Amino acid sequence: MSADPAIAPAGTAAGGVDPVHAAAEHLPAPSRVAITDVRPVVDAGRFPVKRVEGDVMVVSAVVCADGHDELRAQVLHRRGDRAWHTAEMQRRPDGRWETEVALTGLGRHQYAVEAWVDEVATWDRTIARKRAAGQDVALDEASRDEAAARPRRQHLVATPALDVVVERTLAGCSSWYEFFPRSTVDGTHRHATLRDAIDRLDQVAAMGFDVVYLPPIHPIGHTFRKGRDNTTVASADDVGSPWAIGDEHGGHDAVHPQLGTREDVRALVRACRERGMELALDVAFQCSHDHPWVREHPEWFHVRADGSIAHAENPPKRYDDIVPLNFDTDDWPALWQALANVVRSWRALGVRTFRVDNPHTKPFAFWEWLIAEMHREDPGVVFLAEAFAPPPVMLHLAKVGFTQSYTHFPWQHAPWQLEQYMRHLVTGEAAEYFRSNAWPQTPDILTEELQQGIRPAFVCRLVLAATLGASYGIYGPAFETMAHEARPGAEEYAHNEKYELRSWPPGEHALTSEITTINRIRRQMRALQHDRSLHFHRCDNDRIVAFSKTAPRRTHGSDPTGDTSDDPVLVIATTDHWSTQAGTVHLDLDALGVPGASGAGTWDDYEAIDLFGGERYRWSGAHNLVILDPNHHPVHVLRLRPANGRTTSSTTDRTNEGVGA
Amino acid sequence: MSADPAIAPAGTAAGGVDPVHAAAEHLPAPSRVAITDVRPVVDAGRFPVKRVEGDVMVVSAVVCADGHDELRAQVLHRRGDRAWHTAEMQRRPDGRWETEVALTGLGRHQYAVEAWVDEVATWDRTIARKRAAGQDVALDEASRDEAAARPRRQHLVATPALDVVVERTLAGCSSWYEFFPRSTVDGTHRHATLRDAIDRLDQVAAMGFDVVYLPPIHPIGHTFRKGRDNTTVASADDVGSPWAIGDEHGGHDAVHPQLGTREDVRALVRACRERGMELALDVAFQCSHDHPWVREHPEWFHVRADGSIAHAENPPKRYDDIVPLNFDTDDWPALWQALANVVRSWRALGVRTFRVDNPHTKPFAFWEWLIAEMHREDPGVVFLAEAFAPPPVMLHLAKVGFTQSYTHFPWQHAPWQLEQYMRHLVTGEAAEYFRSNAWPQTPDILTEELQQGIRPAFVCRLVLAATLGASYGIYGPAFETMAHEARPGAEEYAHNEKYELRSWPPGEHALTSEITTINRIRRQMRALQHDRSLHFHRCDNDRIVAFSKTAPRRTHGSDPTGDTSDDPVLVIATTDHWSTQAGTVHLDLDALGVPGASGAGTWDDYEAIDLFGGERYRWSGAHNLVILDPNHHPVHVLRLRPANGRTTSSTTDRTNEGVGA
Repeated sequence: MSADPAIAPAGTAAGGVDPVHAAAEHLPAPSRVAITDVRPVVDAGRFPVKRVEGDVMVVSAVVCADGHDELRAQVLHRRGDRAWHTAEMQRRPDGRWETEVALTGLGRHQYAVEAWVDEVATWDRTIARKRAAGQDVALDEASRDEAAARPRRQHLVATPALDVVVERTLAGCSSWYEFFPRSTVDGTHRHATLRDAIDRLDQVAAMGFDVVYLPPIHPIGHTFRKGRDNTTVASADDVGSPWAIGDEHGGHDAVHPQLGTREDVRALVRACRERGMELALDVAFQCSHDHPWVREHPEWFHVRADGSIAHAENPPKRYDDIVPLNFDTDDWPALWQALANVVRSWRALGVRTFRVDNPHTKPFAFWEWLIAEMHREDPGVVFLAEAFAPPPVMLHLAKVGFTQSYTHFPWQHAPWQLEQYMRHLVTGEAAEYFRSNAWPQTPDILTEELQQGIRPAFVCRLVLAATLGASYGIYGPAFETMAHEARPGAEEYAHNEKYELRSWPPGEHALTSEITTINRIRRQMRALQHDRSLHFHRCDNDRIVAFSKTAPRRTHGSDPTGDTSDDPVLVIATTDHWSTQAGTVHLDLDALGVPGASGAGTWDDYEAIDLFGGERYRWSGAHNLVILDPNHHPVHVLRLRPANGRTTSSTTDRTNEGVGA
Repeated sequence: MSADPAIAPAGTAAGGVDPVHAAAEHLPAPSRVAITDVRPVVDAGRFPVKRVEGDVMVVSAVVCADGHDELRAQVLHRRGDRAWHTAEMQRRPDGRWETEVALTGLGRHQYAVEAWVDEVATWDRTIARKRAAGQDVALDEASRDEAAARPRRQHLVATPALDVVVERTLAGCSSWYEFFPRSTVDGTHRHATLRDAIDRLDQVAAMGFDVVYLPPIHPIGHTFRKGRDNTTVASADDVGSPWAIGDEHGGHDAVHPQLGTREDVRALVRACRERGMELALDVAFQCSHDHPWVREHPEWFHVRADGSIAHAENPPKRYDDIVPLNFDTDDWPALWQALANVVRSWRALGVRTFRVDNPHTKPFAFWEWLIAEMHREDPGVVFLAEAFAPPPVMLHLAKVGFTQSYTHFPWQHAPWQLEQYMRHLVTGEAAEYFRSNAWPQTPDILTEELQQGIRPAFVCRLVLAATLGASYGIYGPAFETMAHEARPGAEEYAHNEKYELRSWPPGEHALTSEITTINRIRRQMRALQHDRSLHFHRCDNDRIVAFSKTAPRRTHGSDPTGDTSDDPVLVIATTDHWSTQAGTVHLDLDALGVPGASGAGTWDDYEAIDLFGGERYRWSGAHNLVILDPNHHPVHVLRLRPANGRTTSSTTDRTNEGVGA
């Protein structure tokens, strides 16, 4: 074991100071200043912190020295390899030093902390105190002048640089709409195309979504193709699962011939952009048996003892239509490059956002390299990890670079579950690198709560997802129509669109209005565009959940537009979709902050405007009764502001701010 | 700034994996296993964790990989440069992996975590699940056999080694008794000697103390000697402050001629040892104007503009009798060596414990080097830091190696203060390297609470110190006699022994019995010999404080002796020294653990034996009324055990366990 190269030698004692050696080399005395606990940090700097363009990042540290000298500290900050900038740190009441760094420009930035003794300031303080006590200061003034004559930063010490990856605004706040382009919404029963998908965009944009996400659009394998409802034998007209990628028409860089061409993808990208949205494609690094790579690169797969290629499985579950890639292959460098080229080929058509299928079945090191490579070429690429895995794995994927991550939100039903789960993700170190994207349902997930098929359940889960998460998404047509029939004994949709064409009925769906409203509220209230301020409030009815978010300080020079508000948002929802529930919510007023610094009203008297339901309440103090009738207003999305009408934004007073307005 | 050598380049993206380079070098695929968040750890490994001989250290980490393979992990551990041992880790319910490492042998140990994929176990699990589902396993068995034929730890990864410093038992648990050897306790008024100090040891040992601590025993300077009560001008017979070290008789390695000789120190060391105690000397790295170094090494001091040597000051406060050392001197290596030789010279006489005066006015780097040097020569040397400084400084001194530290305990009066302050030190990362030593008073500190001079205040502060802290101390004679007269307007004793000889009256003092009792209780109850389990319990009377400690698991093979008990200890004290207070204590039963694994009684019915006051109570459940009369029993030190009399130790039932027994 003593020869094990993996064991690095422990740091030498005394931080490496050797006076005997130092005397021989005439080295100066080591610094007397110590800098510890620099924040934010992830795994002691092994992984970068994440932020979003325009964020103001607070950098803080513990700075101390022996004695009573005046200390000074500053943050060094640079974008990429550009010049370093400095920002002086101030000492906080709790003893930590901090400053703010405005993060402008996408990509990797670095920051470090320097600290030193300010001799002149120390002498000045000494002189001032002695003078005040009537003591002689002549000698100290001489020392001060001598120090001022040879200005230097005494005992200067600096920390190693830490990394922060700055991503697009969309990375931190986005609403996703998923649909299968091969299905229709025009009443016809046929295999639709990417051109048909373009025709669906107006409705998606009207609901206010940012991202249109399509499951894999590649050719689908024929061998062991899945049949309807996940049967293992397909009939001749079964379309198969889009995740069984590849056939004679091509693999991951090809488009399913019944969907269209690569040029259609380019057109779809452009059509999204024209409507203020962007297209997200599905990155599923696995193959069907008919994928070209199976023939061209058998070494990229698991070869069994009989020479056959192993299909995917998680025993006793089998996925016969899919063969997983073998990342342990000796040819792994070529495999990695081929996969990177897949992503590049779609980026070449203008796609910058990718939802990654099951990243937890591919090596961490691969993702870390791939995401960094893609970010070197375009720091605005967004990767959403779809990894329903143990929390350490989900967190690790976020550390290695995934921009956003699905979470186990669908299964958090009770208020205590929602609080416990979300709090774990938005506080502590996870808040520095993990961005949750909350989905009430997906093509793979139809929870029992929604299987009940009642409207209040869908409304509550929509609003919870869209307010708990700065990023959220819905599997669109199924959600809008409140589809709720499940495959018996499973948490899966019956007649699952993964295995067959669907024809969603045209026209307004049950929840279009609510979806449109909540997306409009998210655009209006800056508080909902971030997760860090999420705070849960107590309610004496344990069926009711209450939480709030507050808007972070705006960056210098950015003014609130007429359409946005910095007021805090308080969400109160029932988890009882059948009966009315009532209870008193006990607000943590500090967590909510005071709305309006311009001498606005106190918390003794303030307005709670339900932006979702349209009603206005006059509240007083920290304890307020709420009554939630699932059939009327099962959830409130309350904008809080002083009763005198002043707000923190220039928003004009909007009286009718409810559903349908 | 880009040329600033202090800014280390940030880690390369992707943890350094470059497939192009790897392909050229035919490197294997990077490991798929990730190890993060190894604990315990201090500052990401920059500073060592602290433990005590015989401790069982729990090492844990997050271990994960992509996919579903069977993982295995182990801890590597070695003492110094000896061979590495391994201990397999188990996966906990919360997902972390952990194991225990028994720490035997003083000095620096190292530990690291290794993890890998167990191919064979993965195949075994796959085969078992498929068999259970009636699937064909022939090919998997072939793969399994192939893997079993070439056993290897696949995807092996290891963390860098972390350090843990293992110190003597005394380092983790000790009771200190301080007295000035130049004062008398025999009724005479004279300058006493070290030989007289030997005569005092029986009484100190009878009270049950571990450490006898003497303020500096060196020659005292004459120039600007302090007079009584800290006056700046001494009269001819004033003895001066022992901290103004050095005159024509010598400096830090000499003994004050009126106290005795170096041989007397050796005798004192031996006399302590014969009584089961040890001697602690005061390390005060500063000089009087008459110290030999001032003449021999003027460069070791601060020279003012007029050529004079600067005296100590913290403006506007002046310490005219002392000149501080200048650690910024170019001759710092020689200064460091000289100071190390001072400590060595006393260690040569058998002294292994040192109380260090004001370490926060000397550089961190110096202490880090000095303590490590001394520990290289004798890992059992104990250094107690007397640094009443801002918390970051106190914590940093502990990080760089101080074995124990005074704390701001004297000023924590109210229950909420005690809880908030102590919790900060015993939970979180500080618990891994900071060992508090709680003193109710010192020659420098006489708080207003004790200035009242009433017995209940002394009793409560004694018991709080001796139970909150596995290590505690008292400034002996002043405490035993309940001395309480303060210098007007200061938190200092009047007629302070720092500046004059005292003659403490002979015979039993007011608190000898209580001190003896609490020291006996500490020896009996293992729970009180550690700090980590400290837990505060709620009381509905905010004048009452309640906290508990539980005994850690015994190391394999160590049996409880007849005199010690592993039962939990619950301390309940009033902070109202004038009037009776009553309230209900709400116990956190989980934090207390269940006493007795051998089918003992439940918490519905248990005994609370007041080891301090002698009374026995029958308690039931978590909520119990307490009544604390300052003039009768202002504090309970309760041993908790099942009502049927069975205990976790072989202690015989001791009915009369109170003061005076």
